[in-house]
Amino acid sequence: MTTSAPAARMPRQDRSRATRRRLLEAAVECLAEVGWNGSTVLVVAERAGVTRGAAQHHFRTREDLFTAAVEHVAAERLAAALAHVEQLPPPGPARTEAVVEMIVHLYTGPLFRAALHLWVAAATEEPLRSRITGLENHIGREAHRAAVECLGADESAQGVRETVQATLDLARGLGLANLLTDDGPRRAGVVRQWSRLLDAALAG
Amino acid sequence: MTTSAPAARMPRQDRSRATRRRLLEAAVECLAEVGWNGSTVLVVAERAGVTRGAAQHHFRTREDLFTAAVEHVAAERLAAALAHVEQLPPPGPARTEAVVEMIVHLYTGPLFRAALHLWVAAATEEPLRSRITGLENHIGREAHRAAVECLGADESAQGVRETVQATLDLARGLGLANLLTDDGPRRAGVVRQWSRLLDAALAG
Repeated sequence: MTTSAPAARMPRQDRSRATRRRLLEAAVECLAEVGWNGSTVLVVAERAGVTRGAAQHHFRTREDLFTAAVEHVAAERLAAALAHVEQLPPPGPARTEAVVEMIVHLYTGPLFRAALHLWVAAATEEPLRSRITGLENHIGREAHRAAVECLGADESAQGVRETVQATLDLARGLGLANLLTDDGPRRAGVVRQWSRLLDAALAG
Repeated sequence: MTTSAPAARMPRQDRSRATRRRLLEAAVECLAEVGWNGSTVLVVAERAGVTRGAAQHHFRTREDLFTAAVEHVAAERLAAALAHVEQLPPPGPARTEAVVEMIVHLYTGPLFRAALHLWVAAATEEPLRSRITGLENHIGREAHRAAVECLGADESAQGVRETVQATLDLARGLGLANLLTDDGPRRAGVVRQWSRLLDAALAG
């Protein structure tokens, strides 16, 4: 008993973690596709192939589920991007452009769409609002730190901090411009030009 | 009869135009405050002090009302901004910063909030989507043209068109960052730094 108990508990914990992860990924897909109105715990549970009861065991409320989902997926995507840092070109214009492309890519996919639906719902729904405000600050800080690291930016130099922030704000704006139509071709030109200006600003 | 008929018709036309304008302004306020879900023709009519029947005489559907509202108010705000062009500083860094502030101001007020609610609703509601896609293109073109004019930018020079577009994308991103919390102090630093980089890019 004493030796088999921990071994028996582990697979159950693994299963529980896997269920939780499936729910989080399904919640982001669901938000991105149908928006906040159509995104309920039940819809997400069905998409994840999980019973409603199991979903409610993991997440007590709809707000819990979707806030945790955006936080989890944002952290995963950022970690995935950072895992490829050593494959970036050496410092210089090519690296700067690769980093800007990486950042903009994070802001133009399903995760950004999902976050946007949640942000906009939070603007008029109080229980959601305070949750999302905290989450927005957290994600913003992490994204900023990652951008500084990848760009090799020296934030002690005047204006550098604001230049990096502007890059993230630009990425958010490009994400918004991509919401209703495929803005890819126009965006490519803006990304290329901003990368040139950013590289010169960071170098000078 | 022949001389009084036009005179008698005019005030009615004026009244009708004034009612229409009140509805459009009220629709933008309503969208900005309560979002798409809470924004109905009836709620807007009440806010504008107009009967539901009168509102429906002007706008057959909810989509008609809110699309026309964002279009009207965007055109009005842009015209108001352009009316002050001659009060801008002469060409140089101060003018560039004043223009960037003007553009960012357009994207951080109630009009942008209203447009954002409409854009995001359009992402998942088909009757709205095609209407808003056209509107977005139209407003984007007008804003771009106004920015070029105010900045005195020479779009035949390489990269200038994309630099101006990046400025508008940045403004959109700053608008989004201002949705849930007052982002004013951070934004001021980003605007100042962007203005410096933009001025150097346009000059060089």
